[in-house]
Amino acid sequence: MWVPGAPRRPVLAVAMAAAAAGLALAMAARRWRRRPVREVLFFPSPPSCTEALLAEAAGPGAPARPCPCPLPRTDCSLSRLLRRLLSARRSLELCLFAFSCPQLGRAVRLLHRRGVRVRVVTDAQYMGLRGSQIGLLRHDGIQVRHDQGHGYMHHKFAIVDRRMLITGSLNWTTQAIQTNRENVLVVEDAEYVKLYLDEFERIWEQYNPTNYRVLVQGQ
Amino acid sequence: MWVPGAPRRPVLAVAMAAAAAGLALAMAARRWRRRPVREVLFFPSPPSCTEALLAEAAGPGAPARPCPCPLPRTDCSLSRLLRRLLSARRSLELCLFAFSCPQLGRAVRLLHRRGVRVRVVTDAQYMGLRGSQIGLLRHDGIQVRHDQGHGYMHHKFAIVDRRMLITGSLNWTTQAIQTNRENVLVVEDAEYVKLYLDEFERIWEQYNPTNYRVLVQGQ
Repeated sequence: MWVPGAPRRPVLAVAMAAAAAGLALAMAARRWRRRPVREVLFFPSPPSCTEALLAEAAGPGAPARPCPCPLPRTDCSLSRLLRRLLSARRSLELCLFAFSCPQLGRAVRLLHRRGVRVRVVTDAQYMGLRGSQIGLLRHDGIQVRHDQGHGYMHHKFAIVDRRMLITGSLNWTTQAIQTNRENVLVVEDAEYVKLYLDEFERIWEQYNPTNYRVLVQGQ
Repeated sequence: MWVPGAPRRPVLAVAMAAAAAGLALAMAARRWRRRPVREVLFFPSPPSCTEALLAEAAGPGAPARPCPCPLPRTDCSLSRLLRRLLSARRSLELCLFAFSCPQLGRAVRLLHRRGVRVRVVTDAQYMGLRGSQIGLLRHDGIQVRHDQGHGYMHHKFAIVDRRMLITGSLNWTTQAIQTNRENVLVVEDAEYVKLYLDEFERIWEQYNPTNYRVLVQGQ
């Protein structure tokens, strides 16, 4: 205890020690904090079995039978992309020109079933092509909107939990994944996420079915 | 001067003042240092006149006549993209699926004439389409390599002076720029630049003409 008139040195020493300890703790916390994701995926990605990854994501109720397919169980760009997507807990915005990859389609439907709010924007011309996943997504109750203009809705990006941006040249098709030279950038960066989320919301509103032009032909 | 036996306080004070001044200078320098570029460009970009921008980049020897075209002189995503490209001083790597935009083609040829080392990788099927800039680039002596495989060389990225990465969904075509929903991310980030530059070098070597398979048909 400090007695009035006694020297203040011990109090000062204690205060300084506390400040130093606080500073050390803050620095340690900064070092231990999870580093934001910064990943680049290059394609083509040779086909590998993603069954275990998707079965695990389906939860404990899903049947756990080993996949009989002959594909290797190696990690690849597709499995890494799937893992980033499946990390979603609250929301997923997809803005995709073409979407026909069955594994990615299954992952998105799984997330919807897990209660993640999924919204999809796609291209009107490409959504009807053979193998498109859009019909399956809609069948499961996922909200999908599409353009009705001249140009293509050519974006290929996803936003996971409003914190992670996945963007690049890759259309979500099996051909693109297995055959093309492609790149995908995965980044947890609030500034970029905000810009792409704003673009998503602009498109989401613009493609609202209530804004569709309905052509009424004269008799 | 410090005399042995005399108190060291003045020396200590001078040393502390010097350290404080050094620290202040370092902090000021950090604040004044140019922030790395972080930009996102969204398309469609309404047509605007980029003549002044390209004429200025052509240097003082170029004829400086005002452009008679009726297009607005406003800034847009295309002019911003052009400005980033035209900032190149030493090297430009282009990895482009489709390249038919005349303004972007002119900018790349300008850089080549200015002595920038330009290398282009493109897709074999798309490089021959009507309006492609690839023939003009080659005519000017720019090195171009292309795939000869099944899939597409579907990347759409550029690396400026080994310091700035430009990547996204945008093919460098007039239709994509003026009509499509597209995104381009511009980032000065050594880690990302290295990954994309490594990918460029891999492709550049793979597409080396000495590696082409020449089919010799039997009689």
